[in-house]
Amino acid sequence: MALRKAGVLGATGSVGQRFILLLSDHPDFELSVLGASSRSAGKKYKDAVTWKQTSLLPKSSGEVIVSECTPEAFKDCDVVFSGLDADYAGPIEKAFVEAGLVVVSNAKNYRREPDVPLIVPITNTDHLSIIEKKVATAAAKGEKKPGFIICISNCSTAGLVAPLKPLVDKFGPIDLLTTTTLQAISGAGFSPGFPGIDILDNIVPYISGEEEKIEWETKKILGKTNSDNTGFDILSDDDLKVSAQCNRVAVSDGHTECVALKFKNRPAPSVEEVKQCLRDFVCEATQLGCHSAPKQTIHVLEEDDRPQPRLDRERDNGYGVSVGRIRSDPILDFKMVVLSHNTVIGAAGAGILIGELLIAKNII
Amino acid sequence: MALRKAGVLGATGSVGQRFILLLSDHPDFELSVLGASSRSAGKKYKDAVTWKQTSLLPKSSGEVIVSECTPEAFKDCDVVFSGLDADYAGPIEKAFVEAGLVVVSNAKNYRREPDVPLIVPITNTDHLSIIEKKVATAAAKGEKKPGFIICISNCSTAGLVAPLKPLVDKFGPIDLLTTTTLQAISGAGFSPGFPGIDILDNIVPYISGEEEKIEWETKKILGKTNSDNTGFDILSDDDLKVSAQCNRVAVSDGHTECVALKFKNRPAPSVEEVKQCLRDFVCEATQLGCHSAPKQTIHVLEEDDRPQPRLDRERDNGYGVSVGRIRSDPILDFKMVVLSHNTVIGAAGAGILIGELLIAKNII
Amino acid sequence: MALRKAGVLGATGSVGQRFILLLSDHPDFELSVLGASSRSAGKKYKDAVTWKQTSLLPKSSGEVIVSECTPEAFKDCDVVFSGLDADYAGPIEKAFVEAGLVVVSNAKNYRREPDVPLIVPITNTDHLSIIEKKVATAAAKGEKKPGFIICISNCSTAGLVAPLKPLVDKFGPIDLLTTTTLQAISGAGFSPGFPGIDILDNIVPYISGEEEKIEWETKKILGKTNSDNTGFDILSDDDLKVSAQCNRVAVSDGHTECVALKFKNRPAPSVEEVKQCLRDFVCEATQLGCHSAPKQTIHVLEEDDRPQPRLDRERDNGYGVSVGRIRSDPILDFKMVVLSHNTVIGAAGAGILIGELLIAKNII
Amino acid sequence: MALRKAGVLGATGSVGQRFILLLSDHPDFELSVLGASSRSAGKKYKDAVTWKQTSLLPKSSGEVIVSECTPEAFKDCDVVFSGLDADYAGPIEKAFVEAGLVVVSNAKNYRREPDVPLIVPITNTDHLSIIEKKVATAAAKGEKKPGFIICISNCSTAGLVAPLKPLVDKFGPIDLLTTTTLQAISGAGFSPGFPGIDILDNIVPYISGEEEKIEWETKKILGKTNSDNTGFDILSDDDLKVSAQCNRVAVSDGHTECVALKFKNRPAPSVEEVKQCLRDFVCEATQLGCHSAPKQTIHVLEEDDRPQPRLDRERDNGYGVSVGRIRSDPILDFKMVVLSHNTVIGAAGAGILIGELLIAKNII
Repeated sequence: MALRKAGVLGATGSVGQRFILLLSDHPDFELSVLGASSRSAGKKYKDAVTWKQTSLLPKSSGEVIVSECTPEAFKDCDVVFSGLDADYAGPIEKAFVEAGLVVVSNAKNYRREPDVPLIVPITNTDHLSIIEKKVATAAAKGEKKPGFIICISNCSTAGLVAPLKPLVDKFGPIDLLTTTTLQAISGAGFSPGFPGIDILDNIVPYISGEEEKIEWETKKILGKTNSDNTGFDILSDDDLKVSAQCNRVAVSDGHTECVALKFKNRPAPSVEEVKQCLRDFVCEATQLGCHSAPKQTIHVLEEDDRPQPRLDRERDNGYGVSVGRIRSDPILDFKMVVLSHNTVIGAAGAGILIGELLIAKNII
Repeated sequence: MALRKAGVLGATGSVGQRFILLLSDHPDFELSVLGASSRSAGKKYKDAVTWKQTSLLPKSSGEVIVSECTPEAFKDCDVVFSGLDADYAGPIEKAFVEAGLVVVSNAKNYRREPDVPLIVPITNTDHLSIIEKKVATAAAKGEKKPGFIICISNCSTAGLVAPLKPLVDKFGPIDLLTTTTLQAISGAGFSPGFPGIDILDNIVPYISGEEEKIEWETKKILGKTNSDNTGFDILSDDDLKVSAQCNRVAVSDGHTECVALKFKNRPAPSVEEVKQCLRDFVCEATQLGCHSAPKQTIHVLEEDDRPQPRLDRERDNGYGVSVGRIRSDPILDFKMVVLSHNTVIGAAGAGILIGELLIAKNII
Repeated sequence: MALRKAGVLGATGSVGQRFILLLSDHPDFELSVLGASSRSAGKKYKDAVTWKQTSLLPKSSGEVIVSECTPEAFKDCDVVFSGLDADYAGPIEKAFVEAGLVVVSNAKNYRREPDVPLIVPITNTDHLSIIEKKVATAAAKGEKKPGFIICISNCSTAGLVAPLKPLVDKFGPIDLLTTTTLQAISGAGFSPGFPGIDILDNIVPYISGEEEKIEWETKKILGKTNSDNTGFDILSDDDLKVSAQCNRVAVSDGHTECVALKFKNRPAPSVEEVKQCLRDFVCEATQLGCHSAPKQTIHVLEEDDRPQPRLDRERDNGYGVSVGRIRSDPILDFKMVVLSHNTVIGAAGAGILIGELLIAKNII
Repeated sequence: MALRKAGVLGATGSVGQRFILLLSDHPDFELSVLGASSRSAGKKYKDAVTWKQTSLLPKSSGEVIVSECTPEAFKDCDVVFSGLDADYAGPIEKAFVEAGLVVVSNAKNYRREPDVPLIVPITNTDHLSIIEKKVATAAAKGEKKPGFIICISNCSTAGLVAPLKPLVDKFGPIDLLTTTTLQAISGAGFSPGFPGIDILDNIVPYISGEEEKIEWETKKILGKTNSDNTGFDILSDDDLKVSAQCNRVAVSDGHTECVALKFKNRPAPSVEEVKQCLRDFVCEATQLGCHSAPKQTIHVLEEDDRPQPRLDRERDNGYGVSVGRIRSDPILDFKMVVLSHNTVIGAAGAGILIGELLIAKNII
C-alpha cells in the first residue's frame, strides 16, 4: 500500500516532536513536511529544534528543511498532524481546511465546533461517520474532496472516557460521574513548561480550564452523532452530570484519575460484571488492525496498589488504558483508578492512531 | 504555673522525635521520661536515635537516658505522649492506663473504643467531656484519679474534619462527603519509611486501611457524646455517607484533599456563606489560649491555585488548616481543596495541643 | 537607634520577595520603597506580585505602591537592595550609584569591577575597607558622601569560600581546589524558573556561566585588598587553580558541593586541625553583633551521611554553612562536602547581612 | 544453535527480576531454574514475587516453581546468574562453583579474589582469558570442566571505566582520576529500598562502601592479567590514584559522574583526540556480535547540557555509555560527564552480556 504523505504543524514543540517520533518508520505514513514558526522556517529541523525526547531524533527528520505553516507548503500531504499551540492554531488550521487539507489537531480551538469530531481513537470512532458522510456527500455532488479537521480530546478526558464507553454501551447511561485527577507535567510542554519549583515537594491543585474541558468534552464523546450524521447530540446535564477536580503532580508522564460513577439503570451491574466488560472490550481501531492500536484496550489490574504511572503507563506503548481498584462506592455505584499516558493516548499518539483510522476507513 | 511532667513513648521513631521537638522549651511541659524498645533502653537518647528532623536535637533531650516502656518508669508523668507503632501500642498503652496514667496516643489501636475520645484538637474538643465526667465521677466517689487514653485521629481524617465541623455547627448535618487524598510520605515514618523508588516520578493510589479509617473516624468525630457523657453517638450511614480514595504522592509533609460535600438541609448555604463561616471559626483551643493553638484556625484562600503543600503547610506552625477553591459542585453542593500538615495537626502536634487542652480544662 | 530606610529594586522577582521578607520587622531597617518594572509601577505591591514564599506576604508591604526603578524614587533610602535581573541591572544600578545611593546588588553585572567589593558577609568582610576608604576620602575632601555598589557573590561561590577563608587564614594559601556542585533550582527564579520536566527524575550537568563564576569569584574573594585600599589583588592562576563542575538537581533550596583542596604549605594540617579551625571560626559579622549573623558560622558535622539539604540548610536561619565528611584525599590533601542555603547566604540573605555590616561599620 | 540453560539466584529481588526480563525471549538462553529463599521456594514465581518492573512479568516465568538455592536444583544450568544479596551470596556461590557450575554474580563477595575476573563487558573482556586458561588446563589434564565465578563490577565503577579503557589503550596510563557521582536510587533495590523521605527534595552525600569500591575496582579493571594468565596485575597507587565522592540523588535509573583525569604521558592528547578515540571505540562484545552488545559503545555528546539521565540512559538499551562536556581541566588534563545505566551495564544487564561473551568465546 502506498505510504500516505504526512505533515506536522508545530514541529518543534513537545507535541510536534512526539508526532515526528511516531511517524518515523511508520508503516502507513511518510513524513514529508515539517512546519514551524518563521523563526525556524528555512533551517534544518535539527538546528531549529531543542530535542527533548528519550529516543534520539531520527536522522532523516533532522535533515528536513522546516517550512512555514502555510497550506501551500503542505499541499501534497494526505494528512497534517497539528501540534500547534492554541494561540496560533485557530487561523492556521482554518486556512488548511479551507485549502482542502485533512487536519488532525491536538489544539483545543475547534473541539466544540458542531461538525468537528472530537475523537479518542480507542473510544468513539463511530463519530468519524460525520466525516465519512461529508466526504460521500461531496463525492455524490461531484465536488472535490473537502478539507476537514478532527480534534484530539483533552488528555485527561481521554483517559476518563476510555473505560466509560464500553460500560455505557453494555450497562446503559452513566448518570453521575466524578473524577479527581493527578496529572503529569509533560502536558505543559517545554518552553518553558511547568516550573520545577512549583512541583518539587508540591502539588498544584488547579489547571486552568481543565475541569471545564473534562466536564464538557465527556458529554460530546459519550454522546452520539445526530440522526442524519451531520453533527452531534451532546449529552445534557440531565443526561449526565460530571464533576472534575484537577491537580498537577510530580509525575513526568501518565495521568492518574480517581473516578466514581453511578449508572442510570437499576440494579447496577456487579463489580465483577464491570471488570469483565472492561476486560472484554476490543476497540474498533484494534478490530480494524490499525498499526498502533492496543492489543488490550483496557487493562484491569487486580493488585491493590495499581495502576501506578511509572510502572503502568507504557502498556501497549501507551495506547492501552489501565484501570485498577474497581470497587463499590458508598455514595455512587463504583469507584476506580484510571491511568492513561497523556502524551500518547492523550495527545500525539491519539493523533497518529486517528490517522491510521482514516486510512482503515478509506477516508484518506 | 508548675510545669507538667511529660513522657514520650516510642521516642526514637518519627512521631516520637516530633513530640520531643515540640516539648522542648514548651511553656507548659517538662520532658522527663523517654521510652523506647529494650534495644535503646539504657543508652543516652542521642546515641539511641537516628535524628531526622530539620531542627537539631535539643541538647538536653540528647542526654536523657532512654527508659523501658513500663508504667513504673513513667509513674511521675502527668501525661504520656505515645508515638508507639500500632504493633506495640496495644498492651503497653493498656498497662499505662491501668496504672492510672494519662496517655495521648497517635496509635490507632484504641480509636474505636466506646469510651475513648478520638480528638482533633481544633475540632471536636467537646468530646473531652467524657474524660471530665470520668474524672469527676471518680472524685465524687473518693477514688483516686483514673488513668485514661485519648487518641489522636488519623492524619488525613484530621485535615478533612477541621473545616467540616464549623460548617455542620452552622448549616446543619452533612449528608454526603467525598474526599480524594494526595498524601505526603512523612506519615510512613523512617524505618524504613516509604520507598523512594515507589514515589519518584510516581503515585501509589492506595494506602492500606486509610480509606476505612477516614470513612469511620469522620463519623465518630462529627458525632456527639451521648446524653450521660459516657460514650459517643457515632453517626450512622444514614446520617452521613463518606467515600474516600487515598493516594500517596511525592510530597514530604502536607496532605492535600479534594473534597465534595452535600448538606442535608435545603436550601444549601451560598459559597460566600461557607467561606465566611470558615473564616469566622475560632476553635476552642484558641479561645482557651492554648500555647500551640492556631491564631487562625481555618485559612480560606482565594487564589485559584492554592493551597499548595510547600507554600501553605506551615500556616500557624502547622496547626492551621488551609482551604481553597471553594466552589459549587455539579453533583453535590460544594467542592474545595483542603491542606493540613500531617505530622503537626495530623499526628504529634495534635497530641501536644491535646495535652495543652487537658491543662486548660483542668483535667491534668 | 534610628531605622535605616531601605529600598528594594526588582521587588516582584524571587530575590526581591526574599529581601522584603527579611526586611519585614527587621530591627535595623524600615522598608520604604519597592521598585519594579513599569508594568508593576503604580500598583499596590500585593496586586503586582505573584507571591511564592512559604511565609505570607507581610501585610504592610502588600499595601506599598510600587515605584519605577529611578534614583529619584529611592532618593531617601540609606541603602537599596537590588534583586534586578542581570538584563536590567547594569544601567539602573549605575544611575543609582551616580546619584549618590548605596546599592547592595545580587546581580552579576559589577562583580568584576576593580573597585567593587564582592562580598560573602560571613567571609571576606575585610574587603569593605575599600568602601570605608572611599567614604573617608570624600569626607576629607569635604565632598558629599559618595554612592557605591557592593556585590553579593554568586550563590555556589558563597558556600564554597565560606569554609576556605578560615582555613587559608590559619594554614596558608590553597593551591588547588576542585568543586562539583549539586545545585538547587530555587536559584533559577520563578518566571518561568527551571522547568519541572528537566529536573524530575533527572540531573542537568550544566549551568550556563556558573563554572566560570566560581573559578573567577573565588580568586577575588580569597584575595586581599591592595596596599592603598583602592582595589583588589586578585589571586592569579599561579596562586590558586580552581576547577568547578556544576549540576542542577531536584532540590528546592540548598547547594551541596563536593570539594577537594590542597594547601601550598607542607606539611598539610591534619584532618582534626582542619575541623577544629572550622569549628572555632567566628565571622566578623557575628563578632560585631549583626542581627542576622550566624551563631555558629561553620557547622562541622560528624555523621557519615551529612550535610543533607533538607535537614541542614536552615542552620542559623540559612546563614550558617555546614561541612561534613572532612577526610583525607588520595590526590589532593582533603575532601569534604559543603552545604549552603543558596537563597540566604548565597543571595538575598547575604545582601541583608551586608546591609547590617554597613551599619555596624558606620558606613551608612 | 542450542539454547544454553540459564538459572537465576535471588530471583525475587530487584536484580533477579531484571535478569528474568532480560532472559525472556533471549536468543541464546532458556530460563530454566529460578532460585530464591526458602520462604519463596515451592511457590509459583508469580506468587512469590512483588514484581516492580515497567515491563510485565513474562507469563512463562510467572508459572515457574521457585527452587531452593542449591547446586542440585541448578545442576543442568550452563550458566547461573546471581542477584543474591551480599549477606547470602558468599556460601551459596561458593557451593555452586565447587559443584562445577558457572556463576555470573552481581554480589560483591568475590570481586577481590585473585583469580576471579571482575568484568565490565564493554570494557575489560580480555580478563576472561583467566577463565579460558583455567578451562583449557583442566581439559589438558583430562579433568572435568571446572566451575568458576565471574563478578559483575560495582555499578558506578562500570560507568567510570567504560570510557577510560579506550583512552588508556590509546594514550597510555591515567595517573590521577577523580569522580564525583550522582547515583540513582534503583541500585538500592526494593525491600525496603532507599527511603523516599531521604531523597525527596534532598541529596545524601554518602553511600556506604561505594567510594572504596570505585577506588579499588578501577585498579583491577584497568590492570592486566598476569604473564601466565592465572591472576591479575592490579594497578598500584603509584600507577593510578583514584579519588571518589559518592552521592545519592533523586533519579530512578542512571548514574551521572563528574570525572577529571590526568594522563601519565606528556603531552596529553587534545580534547578532539579524546573525543575521536571514544567515538571510534568498538568493544569486543560488539565485534563478536553478542546479542545485547551496544551498537555504539560510547556516545560522545556535544550539547552543553548533556548527558542527562532521563534523556540518555536508554541509549543502546542501556548498554551504551554517554559522555559529554569533554573539556580541558585547569588542574588535571580533562574533565567530562559520564552517564551509565546502573541496572543495565552496572548490574543485571552486564551479567547477561557476560553470559553472551562466554558463549561467543566458547567457554560455555
